[in-house]
Amino acid sequence: MTEHNIFFKPFNRKIVVHDKENLLRAAMEAGIHINASCGGEGVCGKCRVIIEKGDVEDGITEKLDKNDIEQGYRLACRSIVRSDLVVQIPVESSVDESVLNIQSTPRVTARMQKIDFEDLKEKGLFVPPVEKIYMELPEPDAQDHLPDVTRLVSYLYQYHKEHGLVVDLSVIRKVPDIFRQKGFKITVTLVRPINEKSKTHIINIQSGDTTDYNYAVALDIGTTTITGKLIDLFTGKSLAEYSDFNSQISYGEDVITRIMYAEKPGGLKKLHSVVVKTINKIIKNIVDGSGIDIDHISTITIAGNTVMTQLLLMVNPTYIRRSPYVPASTLYPQINASDIGLHLGDHVTALVYPVISSYVGGDIVAGVMGSGMYRTDKLTLLIDIGTNAEIVLGNKDWLACAACSAGPAFEGGGIEFGMRAAKGAIEDFSIDPVTFEPMNITIDGVRPKGICGSGLIIMVASMFELGIINNIGKFDRDLDTLRIRERNGVYEYVLAWKEETQIDRDVVLTEIDIENFIRAKGAIYSGCQTLCEEVGVLFSDVKQIFLAGRFGSYVDLEKAMVVGLIPEIEPDKIIYIGNGSLLGAEMSSLTNRIRRDVVEVTKKMTNFELSETPSYMDKYMAALFLPHTDIDVFPKVKARLEFRNRKKNHV
Amino acid sequence: MTEHNIFFKPFNRKIVVHDKENLLRAAMEAGIHINASCGGEGVCGKCRVIIEKGDVEDGITEKLDKNDIEQGYRLACRSIVRSDLVVQIPVESSVDESVLNIQSTPRVTARMQKIDFEDLKEKGLFVPPVEKIYMELPEPDAQDHLPDVTRLVSYLYQYHKEHGLVVDLSVIRKVPDIFRQKGFKITVTLVRPINEKSKTHIINIQSGDTTDYNYAVALDIGTTTITGKLIDLFTGKSLAEYSDFNSQISYGEDVITRIMYAEKPGGLKKLHSVVVKTINKIIKNIVDGSGIDIDHISTITIAGNTVMTQLLLMVNPTYIRRSPYVPASTLYPQINASDIGLHLGDHVTALVYPVISSYVGGDIVAGVMGSGMYRTDKLTLLIDIGTNAEIVLGNKDWLACAACSAGPAFEGGGIEFGMRAAKGAIEDFSIDPVTFEPMNITIDGVRPKGICGSGLIIMVASMFELGIINNIGKFDRDLDTLRIRERNGVYEYVLAWKEETQIDRDVVLTEIDIENFIRAKGAIYSGCQTLCEEVGVLFSDVKQIFLAGRFGSYVDLEKAMVVGLIPEIEPDKIIYIGNGSLLGAEMSSLTNRIRRDVVEVTKKMTNFELSETPSYMDKYMAALFLPHTDIDVFPKVKARLEFRNRKKNHV
Repeated sequence: MTEHNIFFKPFNRKIVVHDKENLLRAAMEAGIHINASCGGEGVCGKCRVIIEKGDVEDGITEKLDKNDIEQGYRLACRSIVRSDLVVQIPVESSVDESVLNIQSTPRVTARMQKIDFEDLKEKGLFVPPVEKIYMELPEPDAQDHLPDVTRLVSYLYQYHKEHGLVVDLSVIRKVPDIFRQKGFKITVTLVRPINEKSKTHIINIQSGDTTDYNYAVALDIGTTTITGKLIDLFTGKSLAEYSDFNSQISYGEDVITRIMYAEKPGGLKKLHSVVVKTINKIIKNIVDGSGIDIDHISTITIAGNTVMTQLLLMVNPTYIRRSPYVPASTLYPQINASDIGLHLGDHVTALVYPVISSYVGGDIVAGVMGSGMYRTDKLTLLIDIGTNAEIVLGNKDWLACAACSAGPAFEGGGIEFGMRAAKGAIEDFSIDPVTFEPMNITIDGVRPKGICGSGLIIMVASMFELGIINNIGKFDRDLDTLRIRERNGVYEYVLAWKEETQIDRDVVLTEIDIENFIRAKGAIYSGCQTLCEEVGVLFSDVKQIFLAGRFGSYVDLEKAMVVGLIPEIEPDKIIYIGNGSLLGAEMSSLTNRIRRDVVEVTKKMTNFELSETPSYMDKYMAALFLPHTDIDVFPKVKARLEFRNRKKNHV
Repeated sequence: MTEHNIFFKPFNRKIVVHDKENLLRAAMEAGIHINASCGGEGVCGKCRVIIEKGDVEDGITEKLDKNDIEQGYRLACRSIVRSDLVVQIPVESSVDESVLNIQSTPRVTARMQKIDFEDLKEKGLFVPPVEKIYMELPEPDAQDHLPDVTRLVSYLYQYHKEHGLVVDLSVIRKVPDIFRQKGFKITVTLVRPINEKSKTHIINIQSGDTTDYNYAVALDIGTTTITGKLIDLFTGKSLAEYSDFNSQISYGEDVITRIMYAEKPGGLKKLHSVVVKTINKIIKNIVDGSGIDIDHISTITIAGNTVMTQLLLMVNPTYIRRSPYVPASTLYPQINASDIGLHLGDHVTALVYPVISSYVGGDIVAGVMGSGMYRTDKLTLLIDIGTNAEIVLGNKDWLACAACSAGPAFEGGGIEFGMRAAKGAIEDFSIDPVTFEPMNITIDGVRPKGICGSGLIIMVASMFELGIINNIGKFDRDLDTLRIRERNGVYEYVLAWKEETQIDRDVVLTEIDIENFIRAKGAIYSGCQTLCEEVGVLFSDVKQIFLAGRFGSYVDLEKAMVVGLIPEIEPDKIIYIGNGSLLGAEMSSLTNRIRRDVVEVTKKMTNFELSETPSYMDKYMAALFLPHTDIDVFPKVKARLEFRNRKKNHV
């Protein structure tokens, strides 16, 4: 892939980017602040830069006059990098060395762990749980009256060493006609058992040779968002992905209000049917989008938290919210997708990820499986931040987990302009240390309409680093900027003025938002601390952190440490696994090994109820500061803050 | 049970009967002919007898005047035996010794094989496939958050050594609430696997201790009749039985016309739904009749011929009637009863008996299993006569089977007044050798409306023995009786005049009926001959015959040999097993051994297609006589006929 060098003046920072990178994003990546309120749609016209060398595509809007253009001015947010560049950032305030040093820092994002399909193949692990076999059966005649299914089973035994097969009734119903459509040339679909003691099922039969067409769906059912992915089991490739809001949202934002709704007459059935409706919409979307024949989908793997799982399967969730918080089951049997109302062929088996406890669900188990955490020697901490946050600590020998009452701040809950990571969400941010003007980068580069999880972390961290908010999240009341103001008795920072947004309202970050954020991050950090203490390890023993969550793109790790969300650790030991739940569901589709191992993993995983762990509350209270009451547990953050404060005082 | 001696004059025959036996039936049993057209309802008034000693209940109708009654006259068909009796039969024609000797013979019926429950228990075989276990689980608390199902499974493992359990989703759905209804005191229902390699399923859970209430349904789906039986799995007793016509009859009398209907658009679904409707009616009837709670039924075992099985399961039967006549499958998986529309709890598992070939179905396999034929050392011939006839030959080491194209004569098909064994069917018969007046005994002693299988055999045999019909089934045109007449060019015998019937028409037996009967019995006999020849045994090697079928009460064995339906064998080697299909279904409910063994049995059973066996047609043609072209294969019948003919010529 073509790469380009960009040199930013007057900061003298160099960065290497891929061809066609957006120039505003490149600047952010390099830690260069450029005023940009409108998220990248070219509306505010503030992100003017001068291209001194090299060339960009676009970058010109009516915000630039002829004269500007001739001088080399472009709008960074609309500029596409196509060559090496030297870019001059016009600094409107007087800038000296000191200011440059308190500029926002270059992004430090985690390595992204993706499925390494070639590696899987090499290790012989590319063995999907569903397999297709093509056969040309001899036709019956006067001497050979073998019943159709008996013929099938005996040939599978004779030529493919398949024995102890279970043939589902739905297959038996198809066999007689399918056999005779193409002269007893048929393809059977087998589902491998999840343990050695169980049997292989024949779940489908098709006429002719269809072995090239074998697909799986991986599905993550989040409280807020549901994501589906279509996977080609022949090539191992992902063909389509689609997300949508979980329609259950209309019946309650979080799992507790959903359970309360499910307790009403007809409520459980209603919640079941609306989530199924959403899933069917997603399935339709990924099938239509990839142009495959839906009849060739053989399996769907579903991961969700405990409440989502029980609602999907129509299992009364009421006892999940009542002490002592007991879920219905750990394991769920393999079921027929159509039995729960999914619009998939009646042969499609649905595998539902097992759960650990009422608040550590199948999404977390999927993350543990998909990330490979359960197979590693290294002591690993998995932090999955979704509508709530769950943590897992351990390695291949042992695993401990806990749910943190973090709440949905990272998915937008309790944040006035909070939103999930979707088009128009501010996902990256910096702030001018002198003018306090913002640089907003939104998902898909459109005008902002809200703030997603990763944006929120960066905002709070940046403002805290620059002293715009203090260590309990309160704005400095004395700063000279219109952006910080009081409204209805609450201080807030205006991220984008209403004319720059999609929603015709100012997009702001309030002190209440920050308070909620601090509570959320405090719950996660103190949860990690408590879990370590309970199993008798130190933070410093942790060899790697897997960060999972749907908060848009990658989290800035340094910022996450600045706010005290995650313990201080070398950034290269942090691996972002994205949507862990979806990752696990996808891995289960590709290799039956995961489905076999998961039962053992659930047995191995010890659940800790933080609310019943006496030391937890103290740890939580101590974590309600930026980064922490005890700044010494964040030595690097402490050092950097001290350095910056010294610099700042010089300005 | 009290018994009484009856002495019949002037025939000097003695018989011992149970208290409350009907006197007409007692006479028939003893081989005494009494004119009786009306089947036992006292309408014809012909069965007048004089009670010389002892006493009967009833027996008096307006057909007897005061004088008659004083002289001791009673109507035999209305008389209930309550003491030892001396009964004088008024013989209206002149009677000498010779006539007495050609009177009808005493009934020789086969031993009836019933389920010997105590024997089953003693042998340790009373192990129903479904079992209930009561448990008092510890309640979860702050220290013990085990998920409900995990709690259940681990306690079953710990205290009942149950492992590898599969918990169905329907059970998981019930668990949370059921656990908490009676403080974690619960009863689980387990279904044992049909083989060692498979797993035990938890199919139901109920609150409190319900171990005393565990029921099974055994169901025989015949082409004509469906019978259901409710079985108490705690005591082993049968609680209720109910039969009804298979409503599919409206769509075709036999399996071929049903298949043709199934080939029409929507036809298969229609036939499926109407048979399910009949079954549901039967289930309702036996449940209501026994007063049990339907939720305590745990399993249903279903046996039917191949076409009935495929129609029930909605598997296209079209290839069954097309060469080379291949059924869809031998084995069917255990399914959920509610999945095929049965009105039983959603936990109820349905076990469908495996089939052998297109024309040897699950009903026959059930007969082989239920009769114990598959476990015996003795070479056994099983003849099952239903809408068609199937035969099985073999023992515990090998089994061979064949379907005979007998047609439905024994269930009333092709017989003008033919009917199944139901109220009003003539099931026993004799004929006066001099006056040719009939003695009809009907099921439930009501006025006749037709002839069932056992009645038909006895009629043809009796008439043949007395020379009223010849060995090709034609009536003697010269006999002096109004009962034999020509109608529309066909000779017939009037069994009952219309005023004596329920249907306001004469009930007759025509030469066409007899022709059809001869074809049916010929097909069965020649089928048995062919099967023996194919496997290389002689009729005389056969150590016992199991006779199965729904033809009302028991068949008169001697008469069955007289017509050449079954080979000549000592009557005590013939065992009547009744409805073999229902017997097998019932046995499967009581002992899982049967369900385990049946898979092996189906593998062992060799099917012969008679239509493709060259020697069959010759044998069939030779069997189209009474009893057979070669009378020497029926030496005893031959001897008796010769003796009777000599006697008759003396009269």
